[in-house]
Amino acid sequence: MQDRAKATRDAILAGAASVFEEYGYGRASLSQVADRAKVTKGALYFHFPSKEDLARAVITEQHSFVSAQNEELLKQGFPPLESMILMCRRFAANLLTEPMVRAGSRLTLEASSFDEDVRQPYEDWIALMGRLAREAQQRGELRGDLDPDSLARFVVSSLTGVHIVSAVLTERADLSRRVDEMWAMVLPGVLSDDARDTSGELIRKTTGG
Amino acid sequence: MQDRAKATRDAILAGAASVFEEYGYGRASLSQVADRAKVTKGALYFHFPSKEDLARAVITEQHSFVSAQNEELLKQGFPPLESMILMCRRFAANLLTEPMVRAGSRLTLEASSFDEDVRQPYEDWIALMGRLAREAQQRGELRGDLDPDSLARFVVSSLTGVHIVSAVLTERADLSRRVDEMWAMVLPGVLSDDARDTSGELIRKTTGG
Repeated sequence: MQDRAKATRDAILAGAASVFEEYGYGRASLSQVADRAKVTKGALYFHFPSKEDLARAVITEQHSFVSAQNEELLKQGFPPLESMILMCRRFAANLLTEPMVRAGSRLTLEASSFDEDVRQPYEDWIALMGRLAREAQQRGELRGDLDPDSLARFVVSSLTGVHIVSAVLTERADLSRRVDEMWAMVLPGVLSDDARDTSGELIRKTTGG
Repeated sequence: MQDRAKATRDAILAGAASVFEEYGYGRASLSQVADRAKVTKGALYFHFPSKEDLARAVITEQHSFVSAQNEELLKQGFPPLESMILMCRRFAANLLTEPMVRAGSRLTLEASSFDEDVRQPYEDWIALMGRLAREAQQRGELRGDLDPDSLARFVVSSLTGVHIVSAVLTERADLSRRVDEMWAMVLPGVLSDDARDTSGELIRKTTGG
């Protein structure tokens, strides 16, 4: 019975992701979600009493998904700076293929429409990037006078803006290229002199450029 | 009579900016706008038949305002790279003080809620920044192998992300600092070797850092 409830909840979340991704928060309706999830409106209301609840759940689900992917990537043991670049690339790839990430990302940007606090995903990303930047600096890969937290905040901010502008101008068709371009712009300015000599290799290796 | 119509329209736009800034598109109502603009609902509907029309007009008004400020700045004849930095700073300052810019910016991000095409402001910003980056490169200030259009797109994308993350995390309290930080991160990687020797001065001069 608990399994069945979970299956219903998952189906509703998948349906909600698909509807929110397509229509945005304002124009999405619970009837559409029930239709797409193939559940009754009663079942939908039982799990999510309001559209706000459903949107919050999609944002939470997206954040869990992205965090799990980042954790998995960390376990692969790449050098920290390379991990930072690969995480940005993977996030971009998810924005192209994962309905939950596409929906969650759209909802996060629209969040003010339903007064949702969306600090947590940004704070978690910045903390993780800051940890990696600090490690990279300790390994002598980043300039000694650089503030790792500033770099972390800037990378997360830039990634946010890069994906918004790519969505507006090309419906994300150029997103992967823009994320690589972002690192090609940022790296030369933040690497230590030693690391700069081999940065061409890092950029090529991590971005395929 | 035409003057009076224009005064009414301006009052409505100012009221709309204040309401959209506070409530966002989804929760703003035309009654609130009429109240705040001190006009009848009849007068409001005469000028703007729908909430969509009103939101589009606020976005257009914001874009005109920012474009005029950029034009004015260009006339002051700063070197091109300095102009780019100063435009970003001024945009940040407007986001702190100008209700029309704050509202237009919020609506642009929420635009998917009402299916508005918001390409134009991004395209105009990127074109202007690209022109300045090309000039800066011709003057030998930017690396010769840099694509000025890539830099332009990256600067506009980063500025977008920086202001979103600053709004989410600090309600824009740290926005000016973050814009300066953005340039401090980007400049060392894009300047020519010659210009890099004096970049400390440029950063200090333009960002007060």
